[in-house]
Amino acid sequence: MQRTVRRLKDAKMTHILRVQSAALKAIHDYMYESDVVQAMPVVLSPETDPLDHPHFDASVEYYGQRLHLTKSMIFHKQLALLNGGFDKIYFMSPNVRLEEGGLGGTGRHLFEFTQVDIELKEKSKEEFMAVVDGMIASVFAFVIRECEDDLRALGRELRVPELPLKVYESEELRARYGDGFESAASLKEKDPFWITNFKREFYDKEDSVRKGYYHNYDVFWPEGYGEALSGGEREFEYENIVRKMTERKTDMDSYRKYLEAARGGLIPRTVGGGLGIERMVRFLTGQEHVRDVALFPRVPGEHIEF
Amino acid sequence: MQRTVRRLKDAKMTHILRVQSAALKAIHDYMYESDVVQAMPVVLSPETDPLDHPHFDASVEYYGQRLHLTKSMIFHKQLALLNGGFDKIYFMSPNVRLEEGGLGGTGRHLFEFTQVDIELKEKSKEEFMAVVDGMIASVFAFVIRECEDDLRALGRELRVPELPLKVYESEELRARYGDGFESAASLKEKDPFWITNFKREFYDKEDSVRKGYYHNYDVFWPEGYGEALSGGEREFEYENIVRKMTERKTDMDSYRKYLEAARGGLIPRTVGGGLGIERMVRFLTGQEHVRDVALFPRVPGEHIEF
Repeated sequence: MQRTVRRLKDAKMTHILRVQSAALKAIHDYMYESDVVQAMPVVLSPETDPLDHPHFDASVEYYGQRLHLTKSMIFHKQLALLNGGFDKIYFMSPNVRLEEGGLGGTGRHLFEFTQVDIELKEKSKEEFMAVVDGMIASVFAFVIRECEDDLRALGRELRVPELPLKVYESEELRARYGDGFESAASLKEKDPFWITNFKREFYDKEDSVRKGYYHNYDVFWPEGYGEALSGGEREFEYENIVRKMTERKTDMDSYRKYLEAARGGLIPRTVGGGLGIERMVRFLTGQEHVRDVALFPRVPGEHIEF
Repeated sequence: MQRTVRRLKDAKMTHILRVQSAALKAIHDYMYESDVVQAMPVVLSPETDPLDHPHFDASVEYYGQRLHLTKSMIFHKQLALLNGGFDKIYFMSPNVRLEEGGLGGTGRHLFEFTQVDIELKEKSKEEFMAVVDGMIASVFAFVIRECEDDLRALGRELRVPELPLKVYESEELRARYGDGFESAASLKEKDPFWITNFKREFYDKEDSVRKGYYHNYDVFWPEGYGEALSGGEREFEYENIVRKMTERKTDMDSYRKYLEAARGGLIPRTVGGGLGIERMVRFLTGQEHVRDVALFPRVPGEHIEF
């Protein structure tokens, strides 16, 4: 337990937790003032995000049913917006992704982390971006105001980014930096920024005319801290969902209920994304590894002491 | 998916989510203003709460390690307070307790739910009670102010309870009502109230002189809604922990790291408790069953549709 105890007692952890508390408070305030309703997270469910990278199964059996730990609440977020009384929802959603050990060294992977996971109904990606821009600026402003002493103790200087945050097209950055464009751009920028158009999971919307163009995006932290948020406009039409699952060799049998809802025309037209809390706190506090901001870090491939 | 879709589309759910959002906002505001730092929940860990009632195992294997879904963050909360820079911490902690199907009918059990889980260092149970009293009153005041229309639509009248909330001894209530004293008192009372002294898990503090008297407590919602919060002063001395584990036939091999910390004198002297969010929202909105406030309810023994 020595490693755990040393981490817990570390004076740095006091400052980090204070910054985290302020950042979370700013997020909740912003959401409440923006009329985004908050729902409770789902931990176990019959169907969860397939993800587009290798990872191990994490599921349990209960009364004859196989229930998976949430990898992201994407499908639950979409369906939650079936309700006619609100068009914006968020979850503070712990995700478990039992990734391969190699990711432990990236500095930004935990196999268990929390997203502030947001979804908007009948809105465009530009509208979603404006909501997230506002949230990020509000977090920076609040943390800078409330945590002056903590930031000084951590040797961290922050500035509130000017809005709107810059938006880059992935093609434009790839042409400039090559395949490592995400890291290169993150290293070069001084404020958080967006990159649009990534090929990934089936549920991110592909342009109906220009195949291979995706109406999705990531936010990146600057100074090399990398990915902050992932999201997109969503597929909601049954034929598109089935086509894209087929292209990606997604096991459709694992998504029977979701596909049943889609076939019935029950997936609302939505746009959204999830921002990782621990990665945000890592950036705000200027830590080397995302493990450094967690009281009980779960790093891919590492033995968990407690 | 018909049941899920009907639930999600229900106009009542709009009002319930608005009340929930206001209640959560009030909790976070109160905690922030009270200098209670917020840390991120743990979902999987090698050691978790043994619980004192029957339930099924919920664990996964990852890189050769058996990791259990959090039943409560009791041990992590205690250890988190090893940090010298703060003496109050809370988590919005999703708990998974794969309970027996019979509990599905109580109206207040979900096998997956979220607690606002609080722990204070070097404080008495009276001090903890004052913090919780303040939190509850603040939630009521905020919800009544912000959700007037929602409460009217739900046909629900609430009043801000006078503080301090009433405190009963379990012995006094048992003498008055018999073994069903919790339900009887919950039915009779008009405001939330405390009951102290329950025999349960090893980690709740037993009086050092009067054996069989426990410095723990529950908060109950009135009008028959039942249990709201459970907590207590905690055992922190190795000998007491081992004695009480032995008395309860707790499998010590499952708590090796915790016992190692205790043997090293590393468990701080703390007091705390966890308040169930879904049960709170059920009471605030006057719903029959806790399932009625969840978008995707997980009721013990029931088939999970989505």
